[in-house]
Amino acid sequence: MPIEIDYRFPPGVNAEKQAKIIAIGQTVGTWDAPFSHREDILNSHLAQVIRSVTNPDGSSLTTIQFPEANVENDISSLLTMIFGKYSMAGAAKIIAVRLPHHYGTHPKLGISGIRERLNVFNRPLIMAIFKPALGLSASDHAAILQEVANAGLDIIKDDEIMGDLQVAPTLKRLEACHQVLDNIKQQTGRTVLYAINVTGTADKLIEKARLVVREGANALLLNVLTYGFSVLEALAADSEINVPIFAHPAFAGAICASPDYGMSYSVVLGTLMAHGGADAVLYPAHYGSLPFDPDEEAKIRESLRSRHVFPVPSAGIHPGIVPKALADYGQDVILNAGTGIMDHPDNPAAGVKAFFEALERIQQGESFELDHVPQGSLRRALEKWM
Amino acid sequence: MPIEIDYRFPPGVNAEKQAKIIAIGQTVGTWDAPFSHREDILNSHLAQVIRSVTNPDGSSLTTIQFPEANVENDISSLLTMIFGKYSMAGAAKIIAVRLPHHYGTHPKLGISGIRERLNVFNRPLIMAIFKPALGLSASDHAAILQEVANAGLDIIKDDEIMGDLQVAPTLKRLEACHQVLDNIKQQTGRTVLYAINVTGTADKLIEKARLVVREGANALLLNVLTYGFSVLEALAADSEINVPIFAHPAFAGAICASPDYGMSYSVVLGTLMAHGGADAVLYPAHYGSLPFDPDEEAKIRESLRSRHVFPVPSAGIHPGIVPKALADYGQDVILNAGTGIMDHPDNPAAGVKAFFEALERIQQGESFELDHVPQGSLRRALEKWM
Repeated sequence: MPIEIDYRFPPGVNAEKQAKIIAIGQTVGTWDAPFSHREDILNSHLAQVIRSVTNPDGSSLTTIQFPEANVENDISSLLTMIFGKYSMAGAAKIIAVRLPHHYGTHPKLGISGIRERLNVFNRPLIMAIFKPALGLSASDHAAILQEVANAGLDIIKDDEIMGDLQVAPTLKRLEACHQVLDNIKQQTGRTVLYAINVTGTADKLIEKARLVVREGANALLLNVLTYGFSVLEALAADSEINVPIFAHPAFAGAICASPDYGMSYSVVLGTLMAHGGADAVLYPAHYGSLPFDPDEEAKIRESLRSRHVFPVPSAGIHPGIVPKALADYGQDVILNAGTGIMDHPDNPAAGVKAFFEALERIQQGESFELDHVPQGSLRRALEKWM
Repeated sequence: MPIEIDYRFPPGVNAEKQAKIIAIGQTVGTWDAPFSHREDILNSHLAQVIRSVTNPDGSSLTTIQFPEANVENDISSLLTMIFGKYSMAGAAKIIAVRLPHHYGTHPKLGISGIRERLNVFNRPLIMAIFKPALGLSASDHAAILQEVANAGLDIIKDDEIMGDLQVAPTLKRLEACHQVLDNIKQQTGRTVLYAINVTGTADKLIEKARLVVREGANALLLNVLTYGFSVLEALAADSEINVPIFAHPAFAGAICASPDYGMSYSVVLGTLMAHGGADAVLYPAHYGSLPFDPDEEAKIRESLRSRHVFPVPSAGIHPGIVPKALADYGQDVILNAGTGIMDHPDNPAAGVKAFFEALERIQQGESFELDHVPQGSLRRALEKWM
């Protein structure tokens, strides 16, 4: 399979003309007589317009096939080729990217690797986020972790805004939380993953990722779109980074939210993340707090799973959406809740328990109607959020 | 000066409400009684809404001040904070970013450093791009360089799509072109800069940049937006990279082109590049071949110069626009032409000469009316492109 890209143009754009501009302008460009002796090789680098169709609403769609010889088996060179200069040429949105299976980087762990680390194989995983996002000390983090981990949580992550800040430096957070996770492992045999946010300029970020892994970090969080796909790929290919990488979608809306410009969410958070080496990818769930198209969400899920990457629907997730989420996702999903755990009316531990009660009720085929749910953590959560 | 961000919302959006969502949601979030002992420090990380105004067209503008303690003096953590999750919340565009002067990375060379390397102090610089973009061998590159460098060119760069490809690997291009530049230096004393495109996953890209500099590269080209600001910052801060970094705007339209989403071109290609450590920044000129707002171009120019970064208006530049460009830019500009040099009706050398004839006519106060321009390279260029 070659590299195929679908570009959508709004009504009034001459798609056939634009397709030619892309196929030539984003590859070889034009050439004159002095290069006629290189005609064959120049032609071999040109892209081909496969089809151009006009939709009933007047918008149009063009599919272009690019030679793999033009790019370097990574996401950054791919983006430069398919939408580098052309992104500035007028209204056009990339709505699909189809890559050969071998293209890019495979996750080291993915769905099965993360399950093996946790020793949990037959149910969705439950993930929390440290809240408040900024202002807590390292020991505050440890105290929160102690509570939610004891309650049965599988995974916790930093808020994406929490970097290597004076209030709670990365290594201090790791040290404090690592102690908690070690104790839980010793006392219960359970592994809990803590995806610690790695930040900094590219070289320092990669060094820091290696350092925290040496110091016992068992998962990483990366804001792929603000640091760069090239950083994700470096971490994913690094032999010292033998822990799962959780990719955060921060900044995705700047590229994906416009109807007529940029690239679809399903391309950026699905296809590109899956070929960039992420082990698990966070993205908004359509039943959450951010506006999100269910079709885009379904495409992301399929793209990720096709490369064994864990889907992590996020943002506004609480125990009340578990029935819908499981109907959509089945077992291979990580349900990621921030305030949906931390702001449970009782306490964060009750927030975790509410999720497990919800999973249990679904397994037993029991109703989520408020009157049918017994007093307890789940009922308290449903009363607050449903 | 704190960090101040201007967000613009389209008509119908409640700006005051959104401003509060940003100020709280992009920093600390909310907190409950268990954290009341940390109230002071939590408050210190909150952003403040400075103003919200509704414009006559119904759109509105909100200015928010963020604490520097929330970020790491770099562009990536800044983007995560100001537009991370919120970019996915609905229609909103960041149209201005104001940073403290000390924030970020300063260019090592900038305008004066590039001029010193070239020993050219009192005129605009002329820059060309290797064309065709893909398909030429390393020795084809050397032959083109020989011709345009002999004609007096100051700087040449790879096309942004030209990576480390089999047809002309980076080190082979460098080796072939370096020989040409050495000969010119020995024969004429002139330095010509060749901005070689550095690509790859972040760690390999940084290693490759160090390697090409050791092997004699005298300038680098980086597609900042497809590889990541964190990579630019790493190169800019690297003591081994003692050559100017030319930042290419590839992919900027995916972030900037939409009227209601993303960030303005002047923010991304002006403010962020200038605080990210670039020595020279390419962007579309409004009299070029891409649609571009002259006001945005002016803002980019001012942002770059305020940090001594060389502005490089590009895309569709040919000798006929020199009078307009110099009226806008004065001397401190790099005029960057691809086909405007390489596709000159005579040959690329004539393309370079046409630019220098144009500079000479302006210095002499002579007309660009075709009838007044004598036979020669400039006239041939004007006949083709005006």
